[in-house]
Amino acid sequence: MADLEFIKAIAIPSPAKIVLLVLDGLGGLPRPETGKTELESARKPNLDRLAAEGVCGLTDPVSPGITPGSAPGHLALFGYEPSRFNIGRGVLEAVGIDFELQPGDIAARGNFCTVDKTGLITDRRAGRISTEKCIELCRLLDGLVIDEVKVMVRPGKDYRFTAIFRGDGLAPDLSDSDPQQAGMAPLEITATHPGATRTASIANQFVVRAKTLLAKHRPANMILLRGFSQHPHLPSMAEIYQLKPAAIASYPMYRGLARLVGMEVLKTGTSIADEFNTLVENYAKYDFFFLHVKGADAAGEDGDFARKTQVIEQVDDELPRLMELKPDVIVVTGDHSTPALLKGHSWHPVPLLLFSRWCRRDKVSDFGESACLLGGLGRIPATQVMSLAMANALKLNKFGA
Amino acid sequence: MADLEFIKAIAIPSPAKIVLLVLDGLGGLPRPETGKTELESARKPNLDRLAAEGVCGLTDPVSPGITPGSAPGHLALFGYEPSRFNIGRGVLEAVGIDFELQPGDIAARGNFCTVDKTGLITDRRAGRISTEKCIELCRLLDGLVIDEVKVMVRPGKDYRFTAIFRGDGLAPDLSDSDPQQAGMAPLEITATHPGATRTASIANQFVVRAKTLLAKHRPANMILLRGFSQHPHLPSMAEIYQLKPAAIASYPMYRGLARLVGMEVLKTGTSIADEFNTLVENYAKYDFFFLHVKGADAAGEDGDFARKTQVIEQVDDELPRLMELKPDVIVVTGDHSTPALLKGHSWHPVPLLLFSRWCRRDKVSDFGESACLLGGLGRIPATQVMSLAMANALKLNKFGA
Repeated sequence: MADLEFIKAIAIPSPAKIVLLVLDGLGGLPRPETGKTELESARKPNLDRLAAEGVCGLTDPVSPGITPGSAPGHLALFGYEPSRFNIGRGVLEAVGIDFELQPGDIAARGNFCTVDKTGLITDRRAGRISTEKCIELCRLLDGLVIDEVKVMVRPGKDYRFTAIFRGDGLAPDLSDSDPQQAGMAPLEITATHPGATRTASIANQFVVRAKTLLAKHRPANMILLRGFSQHPHLPSMAEIYQLKPAAIASYPMYRGLARLVGMEVLKTGTSIADEFNTLVENYAKYDFFFLHVKGADAAGEDGDFARKTQVIEQVDDELPRLMELKPDVIVVTGDHSTPALLKGHSWHPVPLLLFSRWCRRDKVSDFGESACLLGGLGRIPATQVMSLAMANALKLNKFGA
Repeated sequence: MADLEFIKAIAIPSPAKIVLLVLDGLGGLPRPETGKTELESARKPNLDRLAAEGVCGLTDPVSPGITPGSAPGHLALFGYEPSRFNIGRGVLEAVGIDFELQPGDIAARGNFCTVDKTGLITDRRAGRISTEKCIELCRLLDGLVIDEVKVMVRPGKDYRFTAIFRGDGLAPDLSDSDPQQAGMAPLEITATHPGATRTASIANQFVVRAKTLLAKHRPANMILLRGFSQHPHLPSMAEIYQLKPAAIASYPMYRGLARLVGMEVLKTGTSIADEFNTLVENYAKYDFFFLHVKGADAAGEDGDFARKTQVIEQVDDELPRLMELKPDVIVVTGDHSTPALLKGHSWHPVPLLLFSRWCRRDKVSDFGESACLLGGLGRIPATQVMSLAMANALKLNKFGA
């Protein structure tokens, strides 16, 4: 917390506005055919102009060599040291569906899955059942009471759900039941800390009850639970940075993350244009905007190099609408790299672009991994992006006499 | 302290000499007309030659985005982590006027100011009264005893003074009386920690007495106090680095900072040439010299781009006299940036030049912000400058077997 306490002591409110545009999984790897990454392959005149007028660099979300999940990647960008603030998957799911977690609640991420007669998993995603079906099945499981603990089950997208355990004396130190592969039986949930033994027992009883209730609902005839966790109680961005922050994100998890750091989550649609519309409509009401574009990461995870490039081009098409608002500071970056060639998150440093009147321009005029290497921001931990944005907005007092 | 303890364990004494030349506020921002910073605009053949023969880089005095005051900026250059060693303004002022602080003393920075009949401040600097007048008025206030606490008042330059409170049980956790703007009444001094309640009361009584004593001395008819603080007891550079360090600085605050880290402060004049004379005259007697040039920062604070450039040119003119001494290591840098365009300190990284026989030369031959970005030292925390200087002077043993 030292760094956040430090920033908190020098942050000052002002009308200046900051827009943090996060292209999820922005960083990539070059295609052997061209030697260019997804970002470098994109036609992106607006981003390049912003780079020419701004200053570039690279970020390490956690530290060199470490591949971050979505939560650490975003927490770092918001200025929260991800190794200090580790947020469980279950909590993320719960806040991402607008579930109001209460102190002491334990949340877990759930999948409906298919098991065969011997109990072995044949499909971890139950044939990707529809969201409608998921809602129906969650109603079946919702509200069970086991040993005075109430289990709430809330639907997510497709085969996903969140289970929240509410009662006295629960602990989050539990192993997953999800073995992360087909061909195995669901694992027994065990306590990873002695204080969680009773909670483990309740969670296992819940799984047994769920199996019975779902028996006739093949392919969704079983559940898998993972990421048992408790609300982390992060200090809010308002108290740290003296900002009035808003989040624009079409995916639940990112809305949930933003809520955890105290952002107001704005209603928006599912397209990139929808998100920029939301920015324009709400621009007067906040002084910090986190605008999250999921598509780049999703394409990278799918190994679809061309689609990831297209998502970047779509963002570039919308960029003039952001620039017309004339924010004092614009930051464009990613929460981590998701190279299409790796089909997943990676440890590679992430391109960073910062534009402000006071940014001390560098010579980078082509926003891409190779060019950013020679940028004026150098290579910095992602946790320093917020301080830089705040400084460029003239929202930080001098430190010391 | 971990880093200093680490260096202390491997530092070895030797006859090799290090000169640390600090151009206060060296870093800048480019003028839109030329795209060049103050440093990049200066005619500076000697600095450029030194850069060509040496190795360059950029420093972050505290961390990216953080604008340092003079004390953190210098402490970092001397190798002291500024977030760990935070020195109050009052202490800086006291040591800067050669006042021998005793354990337990509380010091505050003072301004004579003008208040109107209703008590509102009309001029925070009392029309910038002369130093002679300041000396006269300090005599009026000096030596009061309040609740067994002696208050010593010592003149500074123009309207500035230092107040030192000496007695048992004093605490430095006090708010400022200086509201930092005209049009307001001086603020009541309050305890920011319960243990400082009595000290706050004594400080307020002192202000009331001062107001009475100054009533007929308009424009200097009131005082403002800020930066209440206590001696920080830093480990000395002699014990950490095994050096015999000397400081050459024409401004009191920098002499005071040097004294806090155990440097011997040499008598010098007010011009840059005077300071270089002092270096030449004392060169045989020490193995580390901190030479501080204030003018670059002062010009930057005034928003005077041309004057800041001229100060850099004046230093360049004197540089051959330093180079003729053939120090084993020369470091030229700043304690922070002070861009004339911002008229104040800023967070931008600071150009760094290191010359020694063993420096592993890079291709930078033009000492400036853009060129330093590609320098061989990269971008480093300012706290690492001393280790690099020590290493280049062959004054550090190998670490580990």
